[in-house]
Amino acid sequence: MAQRKQVKVTAEPGRQELFIVREFDAPRELVFEAFTNPKYMVDWLGPKNLKMTIDHYHAKSGGSYRYIHTDENGNGYAFSGVIHEIAAPERAIQTFEFEGLPEKGHVSLDTALFDVLPGNRTKLTIQSVFRSVADRDGMVMSGMEGGLTEGFERLDDILAQQKK
Amino acid sequence: MAQRKQVKVTAEPGRQELFIVREFDAPRELVFEAFTNPKYMVDWLGPKNLKMTIDHYHAKSGGSYRYIHTDENGNGYAFSGVIHEIAAPERAIQTFEFEGLPEKGHVSLDTALFDVLPGNRTKLTIQSVFRSVADRDGMVMSGMEGGLTEGFERLDDILAQQKK
Repeated sequence: MAQRKQVKVTAEPGRQELFIVREFDAPRELVFEAFTNPKYMVDWLGPKNLKMTIDHYHAKSGGSYRYIHTDENGNGYAFSGVIHEIAAPERAIQTFEFEGLPEKGHVSLDTALFDVLPGNRTKLTIQSVFRSVADRDGMVMSGMEGGLTEGFERLDDILAQQKK
Repeated sequence: MAQRKQVKVTAEPGRQELFIVREFDAPRELVFEAFTNPKYMVDWLGPKNLKMTIDHYHAKSGGSYRYIHTDENGNGYAFSGVIHEIAAPERAIQTFEFEGLPEKGHVSLDTALFDVLPGNRTKLTIQSVFRSVADRDGMVMSGMEGGLTEGFERLDDILAQQKK
């Protein structure tokens, strides 16, 4: 198997945003579709050891979503938000909240941008803007990067299947 | 007429957020209802010289909205977003985008918090978080404060009517 690509997470100290950058060996339309369509999402989003179940997912501008990640012991972790814009194949903007936090209202605004790279490849840049630096730091400390790494590797595999 | 209350806008240099604080001489439930129900919104939201028309407004968690402000010359300014959460009577979280900008995607995440003050009064705090400092500065420079001042004075009048 070819060497896996790295995900790059940037969180500048004292700022209330972070950036996630990852490249994919697939055309932008494919990456966008696999990234935004819940049909594919259930098979790649999140760490490998969690099973994703969709409560509802209206993947369109003005839509909303809620899904649950469940671990081997049956513990569920729910996430929900609203979709401000899905502008295929270049931009998706939505809110995101982990329902398991002790207090509600710790929401982020997540913008995913899809850029064309030479050789039918795609660069994904996700910006997450938080309500506070503490919220941003909490997300970085949550093990986010490991989940992203595993999720994007599963997404690689789905894209490789799609290209066949 | 009693002296009008001041709206306080805070935008710390170099940050990608701003805060709007305003007090109202009405109980929290009333302020929350007049602030989040489009039936009242059309009569107070925005500068006095603009007429507000609602394209659609689903004022609930998971909902979306779009409205147009029209000036005396018939020029329309459209705003839209999605509603992450309406948690009466204390919190409302939504996205916001002015459709008239030259480029799409300049969205903010707006959180309105309603706190009880002594004497059946209410403190409204709105936090707007932007995708960049430049987006934040653009909003501050747009004449926002004048529109807020006029809008909140109209909201005062609606609340005074409601209390009767």
